[in-house]
Amino acid sequence: MIFEGTVHKYGRDVDTDVIIPARYLNTNDPDELASHAMEDIDAEFVTRVQPGDIIVATENFGCGSSREHAPVAIRYSGVSCVVASSFARIFYRNAINTGLPIVVCPAAAADAEMGDRLKVDLAAGTVENLTQGKTYEAEAFPPFMQELIDRGGLLEFVKSRVGGQGE
Amino acid sequence: MIFEGTVHKYGRDVDTDVIIPARYLNTNDPDELASHAMEDIDAEFVTRVQPGDIIVATENFGCGSSREHAPVAIRYSGVSCVVASSFARIFYRNAINTGLPIVVCPAAAADAEMGDRLKVDLAAGTVENLTQGKTYEAEAFPPFMQELIDRGGLLEFVKSRVGGQGE
Repeated sequence: MIFEGTVHKYGRDVDTDVIIPARYLNTNDPDELASHAMEDIDAEFVTRVQPGDIIVATENFGCGSSREHAPVAIRYSGVSCVVASSFARIFYRNAINTGLPIVVCPAAAADAEMGDRLKVDLAAGTVENLTQGKTYEAEAFPPFMQELIDRGGLLEFVKSRVGGQGE
Repeated sequence: MIFEGTVHKYGRDVDTDVIIPARYLNTNDPDELASHAMEDIDAEFVTRVQPGDIIVATENFGCGSSREHAPVAIRYSGVSCVVASSFARIFYRNAINTGLPIVVCPAAAADAEMGDRLKVDLAAGTVENLTQGKTYEAEAFPPFMQELIDRGGLLEFVKSRVGGQGE
């Protein structure tokens, strides 16, 4: 999987409550969630984001309360992947559950600026900042995990196996 | 992955509270949990189970409250996989989270009896009852999911990526 898009840059400790504010958790509709993505940290995000764009943040992205709505809101906003210096573990897990690609790359995350063009190769484990002309090594996603992400994450896989009933 | 072992057979609606009773949820130690696996449905299970053995049950295995302790208790008891007519969705998901192989195969589950020898080929999607001389078709696990299971499940993968901190 290779993604290329414009950077939306944030700092450290972006928590799940700014990714998708709790007041919108009364729905499971992905498009409805997406329409409020990042609203409390960047009110313009949803009007600015283009399909394929990339969220970049520094340390501890996705900290705070566990909610699968958070990676869902990001993914359905059109964002192709999130690059960060580090992720909260529960967000990392929820991203895999819901099929949102995530990349740990501290150097790329530190250097990238709002509006830069970024190219991410998940299999090769590279992040290229096309605007700044720099390439960074990230940890590659193993193929099995790429395939899980590609199939829409663990929840979709389980649904396809076990059927629609239950939580 | 190919598993061969002796069948421990149960019926329908085996819920997570008999797989690992709530009174033991005060620990996260896998071996401690395993020492109480299936205790409330089969007090002899933990003394009888041998490495590689296979739990077989009919419909809706793992229903009830969501707890990752349940597949952990089963896996650390030495059980190689669980074959059932159907699984509760949340158990199926928790099994993948924690690296317990699970196989949906209603015909094999219905026919198998306590003490039968079973051979399960996860990649081929076959369940063979060596005692009864019958072979059944199950749904094969795709290779990416086998690899995830083989690595200890999603939790271990995330831990290896994000580190030990956090939930």
